[in-house]
Amino acid sequence: MTTLLFRGAREILTCTADTADIVMRDAALLVVDGIVHGVDTFDALSAEAPAAAEIDCTDCVITPGFVDSHTHAVFGGWRAAEYAMRSRGMPYMEIAHRGGGINASVRDIRMRSEEELVELGRTRINAMLSCGTTTAEVKSGYGLDTENELKQLRAIRSLQQETPVDLVPTFMGAHEFPQEYRDRRGAYIDLIVNEMIPAVAGEKLAVFCDVFMEPGVFTAAQTRRVLEAGVRHGLVPKLHADELENSGAAELAVELGAASADHLGAISEAGIAALAQSATVATLLPATLLFLGRNRYAPARRLIDAGATIALATDFNPGSSPTASMPLVMTLACSQMGMDPLEAIVAATVGGARALRLTDGTGTLAPGAPADLAVWDIPDHRELPYRFGAAPLRGVWKRGQRVRPSL
Amino acid sequence: MTTLLFRGAREILTCTADTADIVMRDAALLVVDGIVHGVDTFDALSAEAPAAAEIDCTDCVITPGFVDSHTHAVFGGWRAAEYAMRSRGMPYMEIAHRGGGINASVRDIRMRSEEELVELGRTRINAMLSCGTTTAEVKSGYGLDTENELKQLRAIRSLQQETPVDLVPTFMGAHEFPQEYRDRRGAYIDLIVNEMIPAVAGEKLAVFCDVFMEPGVFTAAQTRRVLEAGVRHGLVPKLHADELENSGAAELAVELGAASADHLGAISEAGIAALAQSATVATLLPATLLFLGRNRYAPARRLIDAGATIALATDFNPGSSPTASMPLVMTLACSQMGMDPLEAIVAATVGGARALRLTDGTGTLAPGAPADLAVWDIPDHRELPYRFGAAPLRGVWKRGQRVRPSL
Repeated sequence: MTTLLFRGAREILTCTADTADIVMRDAALLVVDGIVHGVDTFDALSAEAPAAAEIDCTDCVITPGFVDSHTHAVFGGWRAAEYAMRSRGMPYMEIAHRGGGINASVRDIRMRSEEELVELGRTRINAMLSCGTTTAEVKSGYGLDTENELKQLRAIRSLQQETPVDLVPTFMGAHEFPQEYRDRRGAYIDLIVNEMIPAVAGEKLAVFCDVFMEPGVFTAAQTRRVLEAGVRHGLVPKLHADELENSGAAELAVELGAASADHLGAISEAGIAALAQSATVATLLPATLLFLGRNRYAPARRLIDAGATIALATDFNPGSSPTASMPLVMTLACSQMGMDPLEAIVAATVGGARALRLTDGTGTLAPGAPADLAVWDIPDHRELPYRFGAAPLRGVWKRGQRVRPSL
Repeated sequence: MTTLLFRGAREILTCTADTADIVMRDAALLVVDGIVHGVDTFDALSAEAPAAAEIDCTDCVITPGFVDSHTHAVFGGWRAAEYAMRSRGMPYMEIAHRGGGINASVRDIRMRSEEELVELGRTRINAMLSCGTTTAEVKSGYGLDTENELKQLRAIRSLQQETPVDLVPTFMGAHEFPQEYRDRRGAYIDLIVNEMIPAVAGEKLAVFCDVFMEPGVFTAAQTRRVLEAGVRHGLVPKLHADELENSGAAELAVELGAASADHLGAISEAGIAALAQSATVATLLPATLLFLGRNRYAPARRLIDAGATIALATDFNPGSSPTASMPLVMTLACSQMGMDPLEAIVAATVGGARALRLTDGTGTLAPGAPADLAVWDIPDHRELPYRFGAAPLRGVWKRGQRVRPSL
């Protein structure tokens, strides 16, 4: 039996409830065999486990490791040239016509081997881990044909063999229409439904199925067809919904029982009401809207006040959100979306776990949860978003194993 | 004679002109005794200095070290509690009434010794250096009485003795009215003019004199009185101008021959025209407006197109911009202000130097300039803002001395 006692922390955020009563002050945390045993006074826990190895967290804050529930972290090259064009105001559609956009990453990934994708993916997953993320969803969607979608998902599976970060794979053949199907959109949906989804499910390469529903990309009818086919093969729906224009996508997500509706920059009142009355999580990605040059964000406050469950995620990808940093996303949530630091921390941990339907306690420090945690060199949890994406991380533990530098 | 040859870089940004012709591709850089000797082919430079120590910059980009021309980097504690209040929408004035705002930092700094300020300042200057900043302006303005303004400026001077970062000190007794002068504003101006400025100038503790001109804080008449008194004592004017509301501050800055007018979130057309026709630099601080929850930024594009000289800076301070990262500021400039990556790099280097009236080549890699430079592990300068405040820094050199980790 391996016992670890994290002692001396100013605050331990258990994230076991909503924002009330989750900040334990001057408490200790006992981990037994990689599982959270409990949070209590140091005296109580050291009496319970007198031989525990002690980890000094004096003046620190302990949070659950972040659960980044929306990423495209396995991709080929960066796309900085396109960023330079957009910074001067070139519209996305023109950038796409010049060979940029999602299809630039598609051409890139189709030319690379699975091994290359693993190698590139490793650096991105490591960047996430260095920001305190211990669980991450990762989507396909840069292959856009059967062979390359499978290659991308197999790369994610290979990465899972080597990284301590838990990777939750999502099939997203419906990320964009590939160039060769631009004028045969129905045929591409057929390909997804009849060939890709059965192949992905056959190899058990994904848990979720996601679609980019947005005017000009996937319509409501196409989205429904893809997600329903996914459900028939055991893939849980998720949805890129109402990102830039409203198309009733949040409502469709609820109707289809999606685990989450993501983006929501242009969600309607009806969409807010639908999410609030459902188990579908509202996943907010403010780094994307900031990076794309927008200055309006998803209505986080109204979603929270209506009763929706919120997750915050990075959307880490080379086109619209080249950041792996959950703390930076939390800063944007607090500065631009009216969330307070505690709400942001909850949304970045247990909120993400709910968006991924993880029911083993991931995203919390409840007894029985995997001991996935981050120790921050700050005396007050409010400094986590306040330090503007630069909160000093002392260490990260995954299932009780230290995976980022020593104390 | 010490000679260093930086070889193999994909790009060297000399920042010797505006954005045309400053990107040298596949070139090398020769440094002699801490001074830039020249940028040329590797063959030409190694023939010139065959015994030079070589520094491998393969696949990297070299830029001048950043010149962060607007910071309040010497302060006491962080102010995260106030951030939490503001995130939920509490107005600044109410936060100030509850003891927050600039006066919170004033109470804090008055209770600390000069040695404590040096110790705290060290960590902040080091954070700046770790982001690639090699020259930084630092303001007083958390003392707000003669004794404590002098203490803060002396702390900056002490830090200069130990840090490789060049610190340019600014006296800013007119940062806010201290609590004890709230109802005797004229008397506080008298104190600044008759006591503080002569004392600061007598000890040669500052180069610049700055005022927070904004409705509700310092009026135009008060600003003029302070800055003119500064000029009489050899202090060059700078101005916090038109940050949140327009009050004609940019125009006043030009009239008074200020080195820079800073913030400019609410500058008028007349203010833009005035800056464009002057030597007063427009210093833009987008991190502040983002962090404060605003979604409108200074009109960078219109200022550039009108012909104004632009500097980008962090405004590093515990109230409205707790970031030391110039690359993050550049990301905001490109994503939110319509600047392109090259314009942002120029504004963050030579633009800052112009705002500080540094005429020795600081902020450039021109022959004769101090060899202050940053080596980035990216193949293309556009990745510097694109990597969303996380561009990987390989190393920093100050006057030819390596001051951040080894290659």
